[in-house]
Amino acid sequence: MQMRFTKMQGLGNDFVVIDAIRQQVDLSAGQIRRLADRHFGIGCDQVLLVEPPRSDDTAFHYRIFNADGSEVEQCGNGARCFARYVRDEGLTSANSIRVGTAAGPITLELCPDGQVSVDMGLPRFDPAAIPLAVRARAPAYDLGAGCRALRIGALSMGNPHAVLAVTDDLDQAPVSEIGPRIERDPLFPRGANVGFMQRQSATAIRLRVWERGVGETLACGTGACAAVVVGRLWGELDERVEVSLPGGTLIIDWPGEGMPVRMTGPAVRVFDGSIEMERLRWKY
Amino acid sequence: MQMRFTKMQGLGNDFVVIDAIRQQVDLSAGQIRRLADRHFGIGCDQVLLVEPPRSDDTAFHYRIFNADGSEVEQCGNGARCFARYVRDEGLTSANSIRVGTAAGPITLELCPDGQVSVDMGLPRFDPAAIPLAVRARAPAYDLGAGCRALRIGALSMGNPHAVLAVTDDLDQAPVSEIGPRIERDPLFPRGANVGFMQRQSATAIRLRVWERGVGETLACGTGACAAVVVGRLWGELDERVEVSLPGGTLIIDWPGEGMPVRMTGPAVRVFDGSIEMERLRWKY
Repeated sequence: MQMRFTKMQGLGNDFVVIDAIRQQVDLSAGQIRRLADRHFGIGCDQVLLVEPPRSDDTAFHYRIFNADGSEVEQCGNGARCFARYVRDEGLTSANSIRVGTAAGPITLELCPDGQVSVDMGLPRFDPAAIPLAVRARAPAYDLGAGCRALRIGALSMGNPHAVLAVTDDLDQAPVSEIGPRIERDPLFPRGANVGFMQRQSATAIRLRVWERGVGETLACGTGACAAVVVGRLWGELDERVEVSLPGGTLIIDWPGEGMPVRMTGPAVRVFDGSIEMERLRWKY
Repeated sequence: MQMRFTKMQGLGNDFVVIDAIRQQVDLSAGQIRRLADRHFGIGCDQVLLVEPPRSDDTAFHYRIFNADGSEVEQCGNGARCFARYVRDEGLTSANSIRVGTAAGPITLELCPDGQVSVDMGLPRFDPAAIPLAVRARAPAYDLGAGCRALRIGALSMGNPHAVLAVTDDLDQAPVSEIGPRIERDPLFPRGANVGFMQRQSATAIRLRVWERGVGETLACGTGACAAVVVGRLWGELDERVEVSLPGGTLIIDWPGEGMPVRMTGPAVRVFDGSIEMERLRWKY
């Protein structure tokens, strides 16, 4: 059976997008692993299935699977690609798309310039929610990582984040040395994503993120949100900030405490293809 | 402009194959880098261009480009994919295809089972040709790599190879530890690819290869040839040997000294696609 698909990327986080509305799709975890394999399959970070809605208040449902075949709840870069896809394919003509995900319904906004905005939810600061092994919330925490103390901000964007400020050249920052140390610090009982933020102005930062269990990545959407939230709490950033990541640029809006974070960024269709599922060989 | 392409792989070594006969193709090195990028482009080890013949005694010409945009002379896995492609596309109905490459014309044979045979040329043993920093050719050489001496065979298959026998479990062999040590040993002035060969019978070996400048790979065609040649010179292998690599299996035929090595293996079409060249974004 030939299956049509579209390859998309958002800041280099790449997806095989499969239309499960206009074609019959029933993929096993093994088939997803094969599709995601970069040498024997199509190759992607995640496989995104576009499905019919499961409730009256949504227009679509989508599911995201990691390259190992496991289903994940949500992904900011994937949500943007999903919105761009259903609009470009003519599956909707709306600018505001409400869609069901494994993490509940979300609303995506298509901008006139082709970018897509996603509501990333409320940042949470209470130590139990992050989780962070301290008694009380503070604007910054001191970590004894290595020979010198490090001062970090900490919060949850659905996942735990540590953010630290880099005043020297960000390109030279020892991300792969300090990142895993903070990730595994006892202060974070479930680990942490670690953002290295260099402030350029009140409306622009550069950011590199060490992702928990993964290592440094081209772009981390929740990491961009976390960095701007911390920078704002430290009084260094305005409400709208441009975040330059190795994979590209995001705009993060956060009015302040009690308000959700909004992330705006690109979603690019790279190519269209079709694959004969029986053709997928596999050998390791 | 939409450009059609086909993704293929041979033992996990993967190619974007582009028909430059039935469509106008003019790619810059930068565009090749973008096509080869696994997050922002299609993603492949190499880009393979299928072109009209440049001489009367060949049916096609093909060119292979590395992911960095540089043109390379030849590639056994790529040659097999090329042959499978022109046959499947109906560009030829011949079973024996003579094709021009940057390294000169080669002849590819399509087998009834869909596999493809490639003449890999003569192995060379004289130290100057490998190059190997010894005065005279020997069936084996002793290397003082680390705490224990290692006994290797050495030859050139167009590139320098060291081959050593592993008697314990090959999966546990310290390839990433010993491989780079032998690669950089002063015995090999221009480095070496290092094959770790486990004999299973006179007609079957298992092989892992540390490729010079790359690291361990899923499959190395010249490495498979080198291992069988060394195993035959050591009196341990028959003329036809099945070589199991992490990416799949090759059949290597070598009658003996003065004869060329023949490699037979699979070439798999993975998917077909089309890409809007202007759509290719790039950000690092």
